[in-house]
Amino acid sequence: MHAITIARPGGPEVLTWSEVPDPEPQAGEVVIDVAASAVNRADLMQRQGKYAPPPGASEYPGMECSGTIVAVGRGVSEWHVGDEVCALLAGGGYAERVAVPAAQVLPIPEGVSLLEAAALPEVACTVWSNVFSTARLNPGEVLLVHGGASGVGTFALQLGSAYGARVFCTASKPKLERARAYGAEVAIDYKTEDFVQIVKDETGGHGADVILDNMGAKYLGRNIEVLATNGRLVVIGLQGGRKADLDLGALLTKRASVTATSLRGRPVVEKAQIVAEVRDHVWPLVSAGRVRPVIDRALAMQDAAEAHRVVGASEHVGKVLLVR
Amino acid sequence: MHAITIARPGGPEVLTWSEVPDPEPQAGEVVIDVAASAVNRADLMQRQGKYAPPPGASEYPGMECSGTIVAVGRGVSEWHVGDEVCALLAGGGYAERVAVPAAQVLPIPEGVSLLEAAALPEVACTVWSNVFSTARLNPGEVLLVHGGASGVGTFALQLGSAYGARVFCTASKPKLERARAYGAEVAIDYKTEDFVQIVKDETGGHGADVILDNMGAKYLGRNIEVLATNGRLVVIGLQGGRKADLDLGALLTKRASVTATSLRGRPVVEKAQIVAEVRDHVWPLVSAGRVRPVIDRALAMQDAAEAHRVVGASEHVGKVLLVR
Repeated sequence: MHAITIARPGGPEVLTWSEVPDPEPQAGEVVIDVAASAVNRADLMQRQGKYAPPPGASEYPGMECSGTIVAVGRGVSEWHVGDEVCALLAGGGYAERVAVPAAQVLPIPEGVSLLEAAALPEVACTVWSNVFSTARLNPGEVLLVHGGASGVGTFALQLGSAYGARVFCTASKPKLERARAYGAEVAIDYKTEDFVQIVKDETGGHGADVILDNMGAKYLGRNIEVLATNGRLVVIGLQGGRKADLDLGALLTKRASVTATSLRGRPVVEKAQIVAEVRDHVWPLVSAGRVRPVIDRALAMQDAAEAHRVVGASEHVGKVLLVR
Repeated sequence: MHAITIARPGGPEVLTWSEVPDPEPQAGEVVIDVAASAVNRADLMQRQGKYAPPPGASEYPGMECSGTIVAVGRGVSEWHVGDEVCALLAGGGYAERVAVPAAQVLPIPEGVSLLEAAALPEVACTVWSNVFSTARLNPGEVLLVHGGASGVGTFALQLGSAYGARVFCTASKPKLERARAYGAEVAIDYKTEDFVQIVKDETGGHGADVILDNMGAKYLGRNIEVLATNGRLVVIGLQGGRKADLDLGALLTKRASVTATSLRGRPVVEKAQIVAEVRDHVWPLVSAGRVRPVIDRALAMQDAAEAHRVVGASEHVGKVLLVR
């Protein structure tokens, strides 16, 4: 088969559509004939040599896909050859076929096309596990989403709204209107506006109960400043650096928490748990049309370099698909 | 009645046994005729003018007591005049009588004397809410308790052991043996030994799943270093300062969390929840003799200054009581 390989660490141009060995399903796995994959920011870091795939994972990029099951390993009873599915991957989605543990496979939600479904696994699992399982967002609480126009961001805005939270976000100016369309009560220009002040003003001084953050160090102080009492800050990206001064006194006064997580490195058993919860709690909202995949554009998988350029330049809103 | 008042911010000598107005029970409150109170480190900070009581709380120190109910406010049906009880207070325990919301009152556990019971409310509520409700310690997990010989520490060692955790602690050298007697598998001399290395060595590199920390900034880096994957650090004291560098990258790699909390400032409804959980989950273990109040010494309430000196110098193991 063919897959996108990384010739050497570097820019988008190192991504090469190459002939590689076919994957074989191990016990508990299925092999998916890939219809589409999608770009995640972690793929760009992997391409630059800054984010090695976890042990045992495919060395090719691609942390999610949709497609049709073409082989089933020993011990798999819930999926069959011919099933159209999407899946959360530890890697290898930028390829014609990929092997994945059966527990990381999801059905295609009603009303979503096979190609569109490739935009869902990573964002659904990321938002569910962080905003709901870890931070336990409750209806009526205030959710602040940084990078609200990203794939994860647009999904968090929709899911937070669907669960009855008041949702705020930051984004770049050209994307603010789109963010509002996906459920942000207030979308804040991260360059020219002060998110601490705006969220406090709009909530009568309360602040944010939950923050989903992709900036890390750069926003840590301001995030803690805007957290409400009993607030939960969840950091899922370090685009603004990894080390910052933490004021534990401020955290203690607010009885607040800082959690940092990633999805890819989790063991299969934890991913299986998240995928099962997503199927139970998120898929019905997708099928009902209350939460939709947000697709910026779809490029041919061979044009992965261009897709990486778009995501690297933050030109997109939602997800950039790679289709075969 | 009499209460210990704080003449002005300062050393132990500012604590004065003074005549003050009697407390009246408001709706939902009871008045307790105090048999004993106990010293908490926060009382020392309050004495120094560094920790104001929360709004509406008594201005006298004392965050817990035991005694006999002598008056019952409107709407209280679960307690009656004559009941022997102990209670979690927002303040006012160093006194002959104190008013407290009925939901913060607990029965005296079986096998515990009325005086001993004054040693329980703060430590039981602190350890339960942080180690169990917030950090969700599971049987078989590794709990690291800093300040393992303190009131909170000795209770955390006992409760962690009773719940089937592997318990480690730090303490000063003269207190290590006592800490082991209360359930520490390994008690680490905080001055001469490296708790990161020892906990990792003793757990085959796993580290601590939950850390209960009273040091704050001084231990933040090492605490994160010793945290296991999915580890939870709970900071309940800032004896080593409030500001420190946080490596969010290290936190993210471990998918770990830092929470900082305090008990005193919580609204009554949250305290009521904690007290109810303590009654359900902790009191049976106390009644069964598996978790015991640890009392270093009992002094007369008029000698609160000496009690503060002892606690300030960390001469004690467990709690210092103030009895009438």
